[in-house]
Amino acid sequence: MIGVREAKKIILDNCPSAKIEQVPLKKACGYVLAEPVYSPIDAPPFDQSAMDGYSFSFEQWDKKSELFVTGEVPAGNILTEATKPNQATRIFTGAPLPPGTDTVVMQEMVSTNGQSISIKDDQISKGMNVRKQGSQTKKNEIALTKNHFLSPASVSFLAGLGINSVKIYSPPTISIIVTGKELVNPGQKISEGKIFESNSFGLAAALAMLNITPVYIEMVDDDEMQIIKAINKQLNSDIILLTGGVSVGDYDFVTTALEKCEVNKLFHKVKQKPGKPLFFGKHNNALVFGLPGNPASVLTCFYEYVMDTISHFTKREYIKTANLPLANNYSKKSGLTHFLKGKMLPGEVLILNNQESYMMNSFAQADCLIELEESEEHFHKGDKVNIRIISC
Amino acid sequence: MIGVREAKKIILDNCPSAKIEQVPLKKACGYVLAEPVYSPIDAPPFDQSAMDGYSFSFEQWDKKSELFVTGEVPAGNILTEATKPNQATRIFTGAPLPPGTDTVVMQEMVSTNGQSISIKDDQISKGMNVRKQGSQTKKNEIALTKNHFLSPASVSFLAGLGINSVKIYSPPTISIIVTGKELVNPGQKISEGKIFESNSFGLAAALAMLNITPVYIEMVDDDEMQIIKAINKQLNSDIILLTGGVSVGDYDFVTTALEKCEVNKLFHKVKQKPGKPLFFGKHNNALVFGLPGNPASVLTCFYEYVMDTISHFTKREYIKTANLPLANNYSKKSGLTHFLKGKMLPGEVLILNNQESYMMNSFAQADCLIELEESEEHFHKGDKVNIRIISC
Repeated sequence: MIGVREAKKIILDNCPSAKIEQVPLKKACGYVLAEPVYSPIDAPPFDQSAMDGYSFSFEQWDKKSELFVTGEVPAGNILTEATKPNQATRIFTGAPLPPGTDTVVMQEMVSTNGQSISIKDDQISKGMNVRKQGSQTKKNEIALTKNHFLSPASVSFLAGLGINSVKIYSPPTISIIVTGKELVNPGQKISEGKIFESNSFGLAAALAMLNITPVYIEMVDDDEMQIIKAINKQLNSDIILLTGGVSVGDYDFVTTALEKCEVNKLFHKVKQKPGKPLFFGKHNNALVFGLPGNPASVLTCFYEYVMDTISHFTKREYIKTANLPLANNYSKKSGLTHFLKGKMLPGEVLILNNQESYMMNSFAQADCLIELEESEEHFHKGDKVNIRIISC
Repeated sequence: MIGVREAKKIILDNCPSAKIEQVPLKKACGYVLAEPVYSPIDAPPFDQSAMDGYSFSFEQWDKKSELFVTGEVPAGNILTEATKPNQATRIFTGAPLPPGTDTVVMQEMVSTNGQSISIKDDQISKGMNVRKQGSQTKKNEIALTKNHFLSPASVSFLAGLGINSVKIYSPPTISIIVTGKELVNPGQKISEGKIFESNSFGLAAALAMLNITPVYIEMVDDDEMQIIKAINKQLNSDIILLTGGVSVGDYDFVTTALEKCEVNKLFHKVKQKPGKPLFFGKHNNALVFGLPGNPASVLTCFYEYVMDTISHFTKREYIKTANLPLANNYSKKSGLTHFLKGKMLPGEVLILNNQESYMMNSFAQADCLIELEESEEHFHKGDKVNIRIISC
């Protein structure tokens, strides 16, 4: 049986190279750029008025004469005819400066008789109220670097450069296979000895928070042949998540089924609670997690192991960590790392009640997982502990 | 012209009641419960073995004799025949205890000849290794309270209670209308005087991060009739976001169009930079935001005003705030609140370069918006400022 650190290292050492795909910009938010983006244009693409006002040539104006207003250029239009030295052009925010002009005076800073303007702006200087061509981004310059996280503002920025698709690190394809003869779908009638299947719901919900839809979800009986059949169908996925049947009991068929599917075992059992029976293996590039069947074990292993695996693919950091003092005492035996459902309070973190691995009522209240070191036994209020923040 | 606080108050005072809808549990993650959920069952629904082992009656066992193994109950099965006092039943994790038994001894703690077992567990006590019926949640008890945020663990918890749909606060329906004669879709060829349309991309991306898809996106010319037509089609949405044309220039038709569509103006212009021309109004229950056309103004107003409006509908808090010392000096004129693109550093926050409202390169690097008070002029390194964290 290996420790938590070693298990995490084995998983990351066995992750295949990240995959890259081209996606429409409209779908790119939340992903990470797999290559730098070069600007195809100067932005702004031309000298642009920043105001509603009048454009004119600053140096050819004598600083006192009126200027004759000779034309008008709203945003989206152009004037190809040059504005002459003693002239000004009516111009609006976003419009290109007509040839011969380099400066804009705000409409509030002139007096006008309808035909000419008199400039009342003492502070006016050459180039004022003009957004120079390329002043944000120059053509062929790197607009965003490789590994940049595409926020809404990044998407808006790229759209403004005329870019409508980008190369991102692909999210992994993920299959979920839940096993157990005792499982019944929620909403159906339950007969004696059965329980409601919840693990596919918890996993699919956790994936939805990462904007990933599982490519496949199947519920199978505790039957080796059925489990083998389900696994074989999913070996093209990047990640396969199985739940249940991963211990060594007489009805635990997942590990033998995985062996028969030629999934190479990389570890089985980790010194942790919950989730001790965790299995991890690989078939070609498919990463296979055999998660224990208890719902709290499933989600704990998801947050502790699977999420970092997904980060390896997408290059996005999903989980923030912190180091906080405990709000209460806790004792455990040494030998296993404990992951406890916790709740952050101002400046400290509380270990919730109901930590047993079948108890989801506490997990539903938790916003973090608290890690208690394998070798330690007694934890006191004020002791600093590492937490993983699971609230989004 | 009103201040930022007042503008925010007017918006919240005018939000209609939140709407409630029933959704399948599979789609409920990330929403907030609009009513308490009562458990339809005891969970676990029966006394359940927590281990692979043997179940027996603790009090009827003489603490020394062997027990005859008379049957077997894997998870998902039941044994209706009672186990007798001198007998034990082979049992597996998750299986219901057969009648007549109340305690489970782990398989590792017995010696067996195949027909009977001898218990080697000094610590065994009545009820050990048994998850009692209802020990997590009792039938008809409140499982989750109204206003509970549905995390993945909450969804897993509810599925385990057999619940397959829940009532949540509905996200608002949102329409986006971008205006501007100068706009061309990214990916198309741009002619002189035109720029690429980016605001619908930025807004749709920001909404996608909240798991909201706009019901409608339209790009219209600076033409009053076209704008009126577009607005009238969208007045059934909860929120309408317009961009551009909201100043008082000769080609700004949005405010007059809104008036003709009988959108009741609640404010127009806010003492802020960027986003000074911001318009807010209401038509029946539809909330209408006239956002300025510059991309940085659009997203700033989205994060400062629209996001809190969406929170009013969904009851979910999207944006975290903080109060951090500045990493650099900054000066502005008094009279306007400034919202600046910022980047969080360890223990402080940096005001980025390129704050002009057409500059999206800096916004693409920002992870927060820094608020600089309307009345203040000079800000120094170390001065504490309020920020809104916009990275997800």
